[in-house]
Amino acid sequence: MTHDHLELAEQYQKELVAEGLLVQTGVMGVYGRSGVFEEALEAFDQFVRKQGQALHPEVMRFSPVIGRANYLKTTHIESFPNLIGSVHSFYGKEKDHLEMLRKIQDLEEWTDDLDPTDLMLTPAICYPLYPTVRDTVLNENGRTFDLMGFAFRHEPSVDPARMQTFRMHEFVRMGTPEQALGHRDFWLKKAEEIYQTLGINAKPALANDPFFGRGGRAMVVSQREQELKYELVVPITSEEKPTAIASSNYHLDHFSQPFNIRLANGEVAHTACFGFGLERTTLAMFKKFGFDVKAWPSETKSVLGL
Amino acid sequence: MTHDHLELAEQYQKELVAEGLLVQTGVMGVYGRSGVFEEALEAFDQFVRKQGQALHPEVMRFSPVIGRANYLKTTHIESFPNLIGSVHSFYGKEKDHLEMLRKIQDLEEWTDDLDPTDLMLTPAICYPLYPTVRDTVLNENGRTFDLMGFAFRHEPSVDPARMQTFRMHEFVRMGTPEQALGHRDFWLKKAEEIYQTLGINAKPALANDPFFGRGGRAMVVSQREQELKYELVVPITSEEKPTAIASSNYHLDHFSQPFNIRLANGEVAHTACFGFGLERTTLAMFKKFGFDVKAWPSETKSVLGL
Repeated sequence: MTHDHLELAEQYQKELVAEGLLVQTGVMGVYGRSGVFEEALEAFDQFVRKQGQALHPEVMRFSPVIGRANYLKTTHIESFPNLIGSVHSFYGKEKDHLEMLRKIQDLEEWTDDLDPTDLMLTPAICYPLYPTVRDTVLNENGRTFDLMGFAFRHEPSVDPARMQTFRMHEFVRMGTPEQALGHRDFWLKKAEEIYQTLGINAKPALANDPFFGRGGRAMVVSQREQELKYELVVPITSEEKPTAIASSNYHLDHFSQPFNIRLANGEVAHTACFGFGLERTTLAMFKKFGFDVKAWPSETKSVLGL
Repeated sequence: MTHDHLELAEQYQKELVAEGLLVQTGVMGVYGRSGVFEEALEAFDQFVRKQGQALHPEVMRFSPVIGRANYLKTTHIESFPNLIGSVHSFYGKEKDHLEMLRKIQDLEEWTDDLDPTDLMLTPAICYPLYPTVRDTVLNENGRTFDLMGFAFRHEPSVDPARMQTFRMHEFVRMGTPEQALGHRDFWLKKAEEIYQTLGINAKPALANDPFFGRGGRAMVVSQREQELKYELVVPITSEEKPTAIASSNYHLDHFSQPFNIRLANGEVAHTACFGFGLERTTLAMFKKFGFDVKAWPSETKSVLGL
């Protein structure tokens, strides 16, 4: 982000805070949210959930954490080491505890006294799903899931649209390559319609993830060449740098391979997910329609039941 | 917990998993939840929220994380070091990354390459609230908040009622000692009524927190002598060892002092919170009424809108 965009982002953040919709917590990119913000977010969440019911998805909800062993079976730490959250705790005895408290008191580094738990923070809503389906053979219908939960990405920013913890409502498909691609195509069209109905003009565009390091550049090229990622973008903090409010990822066998999810013919399944960014969509609505929900377009309010 | 209670707890956990209500994730005390489980939980959450509306609370929602600096202003790490979750991430360059990946590959300890972020996992729903009200003077009405979110406690257990991440719906009062105690008394009575309406017989009982170490024993005595904590308990995994499904904590100036929340007369305010355990209440309902929500008592379903 350029300096100008950061300034615009910070300005919008300050407006949201002044309005009481977001509440500063002392850490960049981590906010409390007001009841008004949450009501709009939950209304959109429910609306999206209803839109997915025609697919008869299996509804699953996961906590904000994922088992470390399962996490390490993915390539996340190869691709995004800078974004991870590893959960550490204290395993010591009473005298170790007293020494740790002394360090805290004396403003010394104290977290060396901690050891890793079996948990990482969930980097994307669908990560905890694949391990629960491990070592299974899908039937010809494949499987479809409806997920919602918190993800964590360690990227402190003044941009209110770049939170360190945020929620997404995701629909995940497991099956043949055709089924996975069909899911992608269905949701790219459906999401554009959903946003249109709300009065938000969001178009799908080819996209890429921010892979880490020089090696990451090759992965960006490969991801774009294979057209694996699409995003729907709208202006939130800046017109020139619109923000992704929903995204579609075709994973090929990226998750099915390590967790051994197969088709009846013995081949490794393919997976795809489509995720609606709940905080980002809510921020986009406040940007487009203003901070007073009562004054939002009646069509938008009616669709969301607000 | 005795061996017998653990066996009963594990047996109930296996039933919940066989029924598909909870989904194993490979880590003790961390589960996926089915749509049926979540629907019951959300219905109870909404019911409780409505019960609190008469108090005209300020609705606030926080993420599962709290700023480390604010966390360290509380005494949590003195009292419960064994339960904490500290969030660590990777700050290195490309060559450090490659070396970390090599360690992971070779099954060496790799988390030493991480450094602490500005975040801890939230140990209780109301912790992130107090810093947002820091350095304020309350008017004569004090303030009342409606909170809901995820807490983390690192205590892996086979008992499904002892999850490492779980949600509570909390009502927090800030004001005079009388206002804080009034809040406690109001909610202990109201919660008993709420559970009675649902067909669950839960009585308030004096309780204490599991303070760490030998020094913790004195804190248990002090907490009980001052009657600071009450819990509503019901049998979930065992009749002899009932589980707390809601709890009331009168904090005195425990939070108002470090965050400088004052009354108009200059005195430090007092705070109290009442929290409904959402997973535990849901588990209590499944235990009492069975796994088939359709077969639950019509009064219970009607109250919850199920």
